[in-house]
Amino acid sequence: MQIAIPIFPAFTALDAIGPYEVLQRLPEAEVVFCSEERGPIRTEQGMLAIVADRALSEVPEPDVVVVPGGSGTRHMLSPDDPYVRWIASVHEATTWTTSVCTGSTLLAAAGVLHGTDASTHWAARGLLDQLGAVSVPDRVVERGKVMTAAGVSSGIDMALRLAERIAGARVAEAIQLGIEYDPDPPFDSGSLEKASPEVLETCGVALAAEDGRAVEVHGLGGG
Amino acid sequence: MQIAIPIFPAFTALDAIGPYEVLQRLPEAEVVFCSEERGPIRTEQGMLAIVADRALSEVPEPDVVVVPGGSGTRHMLSPDDPYVRWIASVHEATTWTTSVCTGSTLLAAAGVLHGTDASTHWAARGLLDQLGAVSVPDRVVERGKVMTAAGVSSGIDMALRLAERIAGARVAEAIQLGIEYDPDPPFDSGSLEKASPEVLETCGVALAAEDGRAVEVHGLGGG
Repeated sequence: MQIAIPIFPAFTALDAIGPYEVLQRLPEAEVVFCSEERGPIRTEQGMLAIVADRALSEVPEPDVVVVPGGSGTRHMLSPDDPYVRWIASVHEATTWTTSVCTGSTLLAAAGVLHGTDASTHWAARGLLDQLGAVSVPDRVVERGKVMTAAGVSSGIDMALRLAERIAGARVAEAIQLGIEYDPDPPFDSGSLEKASPEVLETCGVALAAEDGRAVEVHGLGGG
Repeated sequence: MQIAIPIFPAFTALDAIGPYEVLQRLPEAEVVFCSEERGPIRTEQGMLAIVADRALSEVPEPDVVVVPGGSGTRHMLSPDDPYVRWIASVHEATTWTTSVCTGSTLLAAAGVLHGTDASTHWAARGLLDQLGAVSVPDRVVERGKVMTAAGVSSGIDMALRLAERIAGARVAEAIQLGIEYDPDPPFDSGSLEKASPEVLETCGVALAAEDGRAVEVHGLGGG
Protein backbone atom coordinates (compact mmCIF):
# COMPACT_ATOMS: atom_id res chain seq x y z
CA MET A 1 0.00 0.00 0.00
CA GLN A 2 1.54 3.26 -1.13
CA ILE A 3 0.63 6.42 0.81
CA ALA A 4 1.66 9.65 -0.94
CA ILE A 5 2.12 12.96 0.87
CA PRO A 6 2.68 15.81 -1.60
CA ILE A 7 4.63 18.74 -0.14
CA PHE A 8 5.15 22.20 -1.64
CA PRO A 9 6.83 25.47 -0.66
CA ALA A 10 5.29 27.02 2.48
CA PHE A 11 3.43 23.89 3.60
CA THR A 12 2.63 23.33 7.30
CA ALA A 13 4.88 20.62 8.69
CA LEU A 14 2.55 19.13 11.29
CA ASP A 15 -0.24 18.77 8.69
CA ALA A 16 2.00 16.24 6.96
CA ILE A 17 3.94 14.71 9.85
CA GLY A 18 0.96 13.97 12.11
CA PRO A 19 -0.60 11.61 9.55
CA TYR A 20 2.82 10.30 8.49
CA GLU A 21 3.60 9.25 12.07
CA VAL A 22 0.35 7.27 12.30
CA LEU A 23 0.21 5.80 8.79
CA GLN A 24 3.88 4.71 8.53
CA ARG A 25 3.07 2.28 11.37
CA LEU A 26 0.45 0.45 9.32
CA PRO A 27 1.61 -3.03 8.33
CA GLU A 28 3.03 -3.04 4.79
CA ALA A 29 2.56 0.68 4.28
CA GLU A 30 5.05 2.68 2.25
CA VAL A 31 4.83 6.43 2.84
CA VAL A 32 6.30 8.58 0.07
CA PHE A 33 6.89 12.34 0.29
CA CYS A 34 6.72 13.88 -3.17
CA SER A 35 6.84 17.32 -4.79
CA GLU A 36 7.03 18.90 -8.22
CA GLU A 37 10.72 18.04 -8.24
CA ARG A 38 12.73 15.91 -5.82
CA GLY A 39 14.57 17.70 -3.06
CA PRO A 40 14.14 19.64 0.17
CA ILE A 41 10.94 21.68 0.54
CA ARG A 42 10.73 24.46 3.11
CA THR A 43 7.80 25.15 5.42
CA GLU A 44 6.06 28.47 5.92
CA GLN A 45 8.65 30.33 7.98
CA GLY A 46 11.59 28.71 6.22
CA MET A 47 12.96 27.21 9.43
CA LEU A 48 12.47 23.58 8.40
CA ALA A 49 13.01 21.57 5.23
CA ILE A 50 11.56 18.14 4.58
CA VAL A 51 12.86 16.07 1.70
CA ALA A 52 10.62 15.03 -1.17
CA ASP A 53 12.11 11.69 -2.19
CA ARG A 54 10.12 11.51 -5.42
CA ALA A 55 8.74 13.82 -8.04
CA LEU A 56 4.96 13.84 -8.44
CA SER A 57 5.42 12.22 -11.86
CA GLU A 58 7.14 9.28 -10.14
CA VAL A 59 4.07 8.62 -7.98
CA PRO A 60 1.32 8.08 -10.56
CA GLU A 61 -0.92 5.60 -8.71
CA PRO A 62 -0.81 5.95 -4.92
CA ASP A 63 -3.39 4.00 -2.94
CA VAL A 64 -3.81 6.77 -0.37
CA VAL A 65 -3.14 10.50 -0.72
CA VAL A 66 -2.76 12.88 2.24
CA VAL A 67 -2.61 16.54 1.16
CA PRO A 68 -1.28 18.96 3.80
CA GLY A 69 -2.10 22.65 3.93
CA GLY A 70 -0.14 25.80 4.56
CA SER A 71 0.11 29.37 3.34
CA GLY A 72 1.62 28.10 0.09
CA THR A 73 -1.77 26.74 -0.96
CA ARG A 74 -3.05 30.27 -1.55
CA HIS A 75 -0.97 30.50 -4.74
CA MET A 76 -1.93 27.08 -6.03
CA LEU A 77 -5.71 27.23 -6.41
CA SER A 78 -5.83 26.75 -10.16
CA PRO A 79 -6.67 23.68 -12.25
CA ASP A 80 -3.32 24.24 -13.99
CA ASP A 81 -1.24 24.08 -10.84
CA PRO A 82 0.97 20.96 -11.03
CA TYR A 83 -0.09 19.73 -7.58
CA VAL A 84 -3.76 20.29 -8.33
CA ARG A 85 -3.41 18.49 -11.66
CA TRP A 86 -1.66 15.60 -9.92
CA ILE A 87 -4.40 15.36 -7.26
CA ALA A 88 -7.12 15.31 -9.92
CA SER A 89 -5.25 12.60 -11.81
CA VAL A 90 -4.40 10.23 -8.94
CA HIS A 91 -7.81 10.66 -7.28
CA GLU A 92 -9.38 8.55 -10.02
CA ALA A 93 -7.69 5.39 -8.73
CA THR A 94 -7.06 6.06 -5.03
CA THR A 95 -8.61 4.05 -2.25
CA TRP A 96 -8.58 7.17 -0.07
CA THR A 97 -8.07 10.84 -0.94
CA THR A 98 -7.56 12.95 2.17
CA SER A 99 -6.48 16.39 3.33
CA VAL A 100 -5.46 18.24 6.47
CA CYS A 101 -6.06 21.95 7.11
CA THR A 102 -6.04 24.05 3.92
CA GLY A 103 -5.00 20.99 1.95
CA SER A 104 -8.77 20.79 1.43
CA THR A 105 -8.59 23.87 -0.80
CA LEU A 106 -6.27 21.95 -3.12
CA LEU A 107 -8.72 19.04 -3.20
CA ALA A 108 -11.47 21.53 -4.05
CA ALA A 109 -9.40 23.13 -6.80
CA ALA A 110 -8.88 19.64 -8.21
CA GLY A 111 -12.65 19.08 -8.36
CA VAL A 112 -12.66 16.43 -5.63
CA LEU A 113 -14.99 18.31 -3.27
CA HIS A 114 -17.65 19.78 -5.58
CA GLY A 115 -20.84 20.08 -3.51
CA THR A 116 -19.37 17.84 -0.83
CA ASP A 117 -19.17 18.36 2.94
CA ALA A 118 -15.57 18.94 3.97
CA SER A 119 -13.48 20.24 6.85
CA THR A 120 -10.60 22.70 6.79
CA HIS A 121 -8.75 25.12 9.06
CA TRP A 122 -11.30 27.40 10.76
CA ALA A 123 -9.83 30.43 9.01
CA ALA A 124 -10.36 28.91 5.56
CA ARG A 125 -14.01 27.84 5.74
CA GLY A 126 -15.22 30.75 3.62
CA LEU A 127 -12.55 30.10 1.01
CA LEU A 128 -13.43 26.43 0.86
CA ASP A 129 -17.07 27.33 0.19
CA GLN A 130 -16.00 29.70 -2.58
CA LEU A 131 -14.17 26.78 -4.18
CA GLY A 132 -17.40 24.77 -4.40
CA ALA A 133 -17.25 22.60 -1.29
CA VAL A 134 -19.63 22.76 1.68
CA SER A 135 -17.46 23.53 4.70
CA VAL A 136 -18.52 22.00 7.99
CA PRO A 137 -16.91 22.63 11.39
CA ASP A 138 -16.31 18.96 12.24
CA ARG A 139 -12.78 17.86 13.07
CA VAL A 140 -12.84 14.95 10.63
CA VAL A 141 -15.32 14.54 7.77
CA GLU A 142 -15.64 11.28 5.83
CA ARG A 143 -17.61 11.20 2.58
CA GLY A 144 -17.13 8.11 0.47
CA LYS A 145 -13.42 7.71 -0.13
CA VAL A 146 -12.69 11.34 0.73
CA MET A 147 -11.66 12.29 4.25
CA THR A 148 -10.87 15.87 5.27
CA ALA A 149 -9.60 17.23 8.57
CA ALA A 150 -9.70 20.62 10.29
CA GLY A 151 -6.58 22.64 11.11
CA VAL A 152 -3.01 21.36 11.53
CA SER A 153 -3.14 19.02 14.56
CA SER A 154 -6.41 17.41 13.46
CA GLY A 155 -4.50 15.29 10.95
CA ILE A 156 -3.56 12.96 13.80
CA ASP A 157 -7.22 12.28 14.61
CA MET A 158 -7.98 11.81 10.91
CA ALA A 159 -5.10 9.42 10.39
CA LEU A 160 -6.22 7.21 13.27
CA ARG A 161 -9.68 7.01 11.69
CA LEU A 162 -8.07 6.21 8.34
CA ALA A 163 -5.88 3.56 9.98
CA GLU A 164 -9.03 1.94 11.36
CA ARG A 165 -10.70 1.95 7.94
CA ILE A 166 -7.61 0.40 6.35
CA ALA A 167 -6.46 -2.08 9.00
CA GLY A 168 -9.18 -2.33 11.64
CA ALA A 169 -9.71 -0.88 15.09
CA ARG A 170 -7.25 -3.11 16.90
CA VAL A 171 -4.34 -2.00 14.73
CA ALA A 172 -5.42 1.65 14.89
CA GLU A 173 -5.67 1.50 18.68
CA ALA A 174 -2.25 -0.13 18.88
CA ILE A 175 -0.84 2.74 16.85
CA GLN A 176 -2.54 5.20 19.20
CA LEU A 177 -0.79 3.48 22.11
CA GLY A 178 2.49 3.41 20.21
CA ILE A 179 2.45 7.18 19.75
CA GLU A 180 1.03 7.59 23.28
CA TYR A 181 -1.78 9.76 21.92
CA ASP A 182 -3.64 10.45 25.14
CA PRO A 183 -3.86 14.21 24.63
CA ASP A 184 -3.94 16.54 27.61
CA PRO A 185 -3.60 20.15 26.40
CA PRO A 186 -2.73 22.61 29.17
CA PHE A 187 -5.44 25.00 27.91
CA ASP A 188 -8.83 24.62 26.27
CA SER A 189 -8.39 27.10 23.48
CA GLY A 190 -8.23 24.88 20.41
CA SER A 191 -11.37 26.01 18.56
CA LEU A 192 -13.16 29.26 17.75
CA GLU A 193 -15.94 28.26 20.11
CA LYS A 194 -13.60 27.61 23.05
CA ALA A 195 -11.04 30.40 22.70
CA SER A 196 -11.54 33.54 24.79
CA PRO A 197 -12.21 36.94 23.20
CA GLU A 198 -8.69 37.99 24.21
CA VAL A 199 -7.19 34.99 22.43
CA LEU A 200 -9.28 35.62 19.32
CA GLU A 201 -8.03 39.18 19.37
CA THR A 202 -4.43 37.99 19.70
CA CYS A 203 -5.01 35.81 16.65
CA GLY A 204 -6.44 38.81 14.81
CA VAL A 205 -9.80 37.12 14.44
CA ALA A 206 -12.94 39.16 13.92
CA LEU A 207 -16.06 37.06 14.09
CA ALA A 208 -18.91 37.88 11.77
CA ALA A 209 -21.91 38.45 14.00
CA GLU A 210 -24.40 36.48 11.97
CA ASP A 211 -22.78 33.05 11.96
CA GLY A 212 -19.72 33.08 14.20
CA ARG A 213 -17.35 32.58 11.29
CA ALA A 214 -13.87 34.03 11.31
CA VAL A 215 -13.70 36.73 8.68
CA GLU A 216 -10.22 38.09 9.17
CA VAL A 217 -7.00 36.49 10.29
CA HIS A 218 -3.53 37.80 10.85
CA GLY A 219 -0.63 36.97 13.09
CA LEU A 220 -0.28 33.88 15.24
CA GLY A 221 -3.46 32.21 14.13
CA GLY A 222 -2.64 31.46 10.51
CA GLY A 223 -2.92 27.84 9.54
CA MET B 1 15.48 33.32 21.12
CA GLN B 2 17.11 30.31 19.49
CA ILE B 3 15.37 26.95 19.84
CA ALA B 4 17.53 23.98 18.83
CA ILE B 5 16.13 20.59 17.83
CA PRO B 6 18.91 18.01 17.42
CA ILE B 7 18.03 15.17 15.05
CA PHE B 8 19.90 11.90 14.48
CA PRO B 9 19.49 8.74 12.41
CA ALA B 10 16.32 6.80 13.35
CA PHE B 11 14.67 9.64 15.26
CA THR B 12 10.86 9.82 15.54
CA ALA B 13 9.55 12.62 13.33
CA LEU B 14 6.50 13.65 15.36
CA ASP B 15 8.64 13.96 18.53
CA ALA B 16 10.43 16.82 16.78
CA ILE B 17 7.71 18.29 14.56
CA GLY B 18 4.99 18.56 17.22
CA PRO B 19 7.07 20.97 19.34
CA TYR B 20 8.46 22.68 16.22
CA GLU B 21 4.96 23.51 15.02
CA VAL B 22 4.09 25.15 18.34
CA LEU B 23 7.39 26.87 19.11
CA GLN B 24 8.07 28.31 15.65
CA ARG B 25 4.93 30.42 16.20
CA LEU B 26 6.41 32.16 19.24
CA PRO B 27 7.21 35.80 18.50
CA GLU B 28 10.89 36.25 17.64
CA ALA B 29 11.68 32.56 17.89
CA GLU B 30 14.22 30.96 15.57
CA VAL B 31 13.96 27.16 15.40
CA VAL B 32 17.11 25.39 14.19
CA PHE B 33 17.32 21.71 13.26
CA CYS B 34 20.86 20.44 13.83
CA SER B 35 22.79 17.17 13.67
CA GLU B 36 26.35 15.88 13.87
CA GLU B 37 26.80 17.09 10.29
CA ARG B 38 24.51 19.20 8.14
CA GLY B 39 22.21 17.37 5.77
CA PRO B 40 19.15 15.14 5.56
CA ILE B 41 18.53 12.79 8.49
CA ARG B 42 16.21 9.79 8.10
CA THR B 43 13.60 8.67 10.58
CA GLU B 44 13.19 5.16 11.95
CA GLN B 45 11.70 3.40 8.95
CA GLY B 46 13.70 5.40 6.43
CA MET B 47 10.57 6.77 4.72
CA LEU B 48 11.18 10.41 5.65
CA ALA B 49 14.20 12.71 5.75
CA ILE B 50 14.31 16.04 7.56
CA VAL B 51 17.14 18.44 6.86
CA ALA B 52 19.55 19.50 9.59
CA ASP B 53 20.45 23.03 8.55
CA ARG B 54 23.33 23.30 11.01
CA ALA B 55 25.94 21.08 12.57
CA LEU B 56 25.79 20.73 16.36
CA SER B 57 29.07 22.66 16.53
CA GLU B 58 27.36 25.59 14.83
CA VAL B 59 24.73 25.79 17.59
CA PRO B 60 26.82 26.27 20.73
CA GLU B 61 24.46 28.37 22.85
CA PRO B 62 20.77 27.73 22.16
CA ASP B 63 18.27 29.25 24.56
CA VAL B 64 15.95 26.27 24.37
CA VAL B 65 16.72 22.66 23.45
CA VAL B 66 14.09 20.09 22.46
CA VAL B 67 15.51 16.57 22.17
CA PRO B 68 13.33 14.08 20.27
CA GLY B 69 13.45 10.32 20.76
CA GLY B 70 13.38 7.32 18.48
CA SER B 71 14.97 3.91 18.13
CA GLY B 72 18.26 5.58 17.23
CA THR B 73 18.69 6.69 20.83
CA ARG B 74 19.43 3.12 21.90
CA HIS B 75 22.87 3.34 20.29
CA MET B 76 23.68 6.77 21.70
CA LEU B 77 23.55 6.28 25.47
CA SER B 78 27.20 7.05 26.20
CA PRO B 79 28.84 10.20 27.56
CA ASP B 80 31.10 10.08 24.49
CA ASP B 81 28.26 10.19 21.97
CA PRO B 82 28.46 13.52 20.09
CA TYR B 83 24.79 14.35 20.71
CA VAL B 84 25.07 13.50 24.40
CA ARG B 85 28.23 15.59 24.69
CA TRP B 86 26.48 18.49 22.95
CA ILE B 87 23.45 18.25 25.27
CA ALA B 88 25.69 18.27 28.35
CA SER B 89 27.56 21.28 27.00
CA VAL B 90 24.64 23.48 25.95
CA HIS B 91 22.55 22.58 29.02
CA GLU B 92 24.84 24.75 31.15
CA ALA B 93 23.51 27.94 29.55
CA THR B 94 20.03 27.05 28.32
CA THR B 95 16.86 28.66 29.59
CA TRP B 96 15.01 25.40 28.98
CA THR B 97 16.29 21.88 28.32
CA THR B 98 13.49 19.58 27.19
CA SER B 99 12.82 16.18 25.66
CA VAL B 100 10.05 14.18 24.05
CA CYS B 101 9.68 10.38 24.23
CA THR B 102 13.02 8.56 24.53
CA GLY B 103 14.83 11.87 24.05
CA SER B 104 14.80 11.74 27.86
CA THR B 105 17.31 8.88 27.75
CA LEU B 106 19.73 11.20 25.96
CA LEU B 107 19.19 13.86 28.63
CA ALA B 108 19.87 11.21 31.26
CA ALA B 109 23.02 10.03 29.50
CA ALA B 110 24.16 13.67 29.49
CA GLY B 111 23.72 13.87 33.26
CA VAL B 112 20.78 16.26 33.08
CA LEU B 113 18.30 14.00 34.88
CA HIS B 114 20.34 12.48 37.72
CA GLY B 115 17.90 11.71 40.53
CA THR B 116 15.25 13.86 38.86
CA ASP B 117 11.62 13.06 38.08
CA ALA B 118 11.16 12.75 34.32
CA SER B 119 8.73 11.42 31.75
CA THR B 120 9.42 9.25 28.71
CA HIS B 121 7.67 6.83 26.35
CA TRP B 122 5.87 4.19 28.42
CA ALA B 123 8.08 1.46 26.99
CA ALA B 124 11.26 3.21 28.16
CA ARG B 125 10.46 3.90 31.81
CA GLY B 126 12.66 1.08 33.07
CA LEU B 127 15.55 2.18 30.89
CA LEU B 128 15.22 5.77 32.07
CA ASP B 129 15.45 4.58 35.68
CA GLN B 130 18.56 2.54 34.84
CA LEU B 131 20.11 5.74 33.52
CA GLY B 132 19.70 7.45 36.91
CA ALA B 133 16.44 9.37 36.47
CA VAL B 134 13.20 8.75 38.34
CA SER B 135 10.59 7.94 35.70
CA VAL B 136 7.05 9.10 36.38
CA PRO B 137 4.00 8.35 34.24
CA ASP B 138 2.90 11.97 33.83
CA ARG B 139 2.48 13.31 30.32
CA VAL B 140 4.60 16.41 30.96
CA VAL B 141 7.03 16.82 33.87
CA GLU B 142 8.59 20.18 34.75
CA ARG B 143 11.52 20.33 37.19
CA GLY B 144 13.37 23.62 37.27
CA LYS B 145 14.44 24.41 33.73
CA VAL B 146 14.04 20.80 32.59
CA MET B 147 10.81 19.68 30.97
CA THR B 148 10.24 16.12 29.75
CA ALA B 149 7.30 14.62 27.90
CA ALA B 150 5.90 11.12 27.47
CA GLY B 151 5.74 9.33 24.10
CA VAL B 152 5.70 10.91 20.63
CA SER B 153 2.47 12.98 20.49
CA SER B 154 2.94 14.36 24.02
CA GLY B 155 5.49 16.82 22.68
CA ILE B 156 2.59 19.01 21.51
CA ASP B 157 1.22 19.27 25.04
CA MET B 158 4.70 19.95 26.39
CA ALA B 159 5.41 22.64 23.83
CA LEU B 160 2.21 24.50 24.68
CA ARG B 161 3.25 24.51 28.34
CA LEU B 162 6.70 25.71 27.31
CA ALA B 163 5.14 28.43 25.14
CA GLU B 164 3.20 29.63 28.16
CA ARG B 165 6.34 29.72 30.31
CA ILE B 166 8.18 31.69 27.62
CA ALA B 167 5.50 34.05 26.30
CA GLY B 168 2.49 33.82 28.61
CA ALA B 169 -0.84 32.06 28.51
CA ARG B 170 -2.48 34.35 25.98
CA VAL B 171 0.17 33.69 23.34
CA ALA B 172 0.20 29.96 24.10
CA GLU B 173 -3.59 29.78 23.80
CA ALA B 174 -3.45 31.71 20.52
CA ILE B 175 -0.98 29.16 19.20
CA GLN B 176 -3.31 26.37 20.33
CA LEU B 177 -6.09 27.99 18.32
CA GLY B 178 -3.76 28.53 15.37
CA ILE B 179 -2.96 24.81 15.17
CA GLU B 180 -6.59 23.99 16.02
CA TYR B 181 -5.46 21.68 18.81
CA ASP B 182 -8.83 20.56 20.11
CA PRO B 183 -8.00 16.85 20.09
CA ASP B 184 -10.71 14.28 19.54
CA PRO B 185 -9.15 10.85 19.09
CA PRO B 186 -11.53 8.27 17.62
CA PHE B 187 -10.44 5.74 20.28
CA ASP B 188 -9.33 5.92 23.90
CA SER B 189 -6.28 3.73 23.69
CA GLY B 190 -3.46 6.19 24.18
CA SER B 191 -1.96 4.92 27.44
CA LEU B 192 -1.10 1.60 29.06
CA GLU B 193 -3.92 2.14 31.54
CA LYS B 194 -6.55 2.76 28.85
CA ALA B 195 -5.58 0.27 26.15
CA SER B 196 -7.42 -3.05 26.07
CA PRO B 197 -5.61 -6.36 26.69
CA GLU B 198 -6.03 -7.14 22.98
CA VAL B 199 -4.33 -3.89 22.01
CA LEU B 200 -1.51 -4.47 24.49
CA GLU B 201 -1.04 -7.89 22.95
CA THR B 202 -0.97 -6.39 19.46
CA CYS B 203 1.77 -4.05 20.67
CA GLY B 204 3.69 -6.98 22.09
CA VAL B 205 3.39 -5.63 25.60
CA ALA B 206 3.61 -7.93 28.60
CA LEU B 207 2.89 -6.14 31.84
CA ALA B 208 4.91 -7.02 34.91
CA ALA B 209 2.38 -8.13 37.51
CA GLU B 210 3.85 -6.26 40.43
CA ASP B 211 3.81 -2.73 39.10
CA GLY B 212 1.99 -2.64 35.80
CA ARG B 213 5.08 -1.63 33.86
CA ALA B 214 5.63 -2.75 30.32
CA VAL B 215 8.48 -5.22 30.30
CA GLU B 216 8.56 -6.30 26.69
CA VAL B 217 7.78 -4.45 23.50
CA HIS B 218 7.84 -5.43 19.87
CA GLY B 219 6.00 -4.47 16.78
CA LEU B 220 3.64 -1.56 16.42
CA GLY B 221 4.16 -0.16 19.88
CA GLY B 222 7.74 1.00 19.55
CA GLY B 223 8.31 4.62 20.31
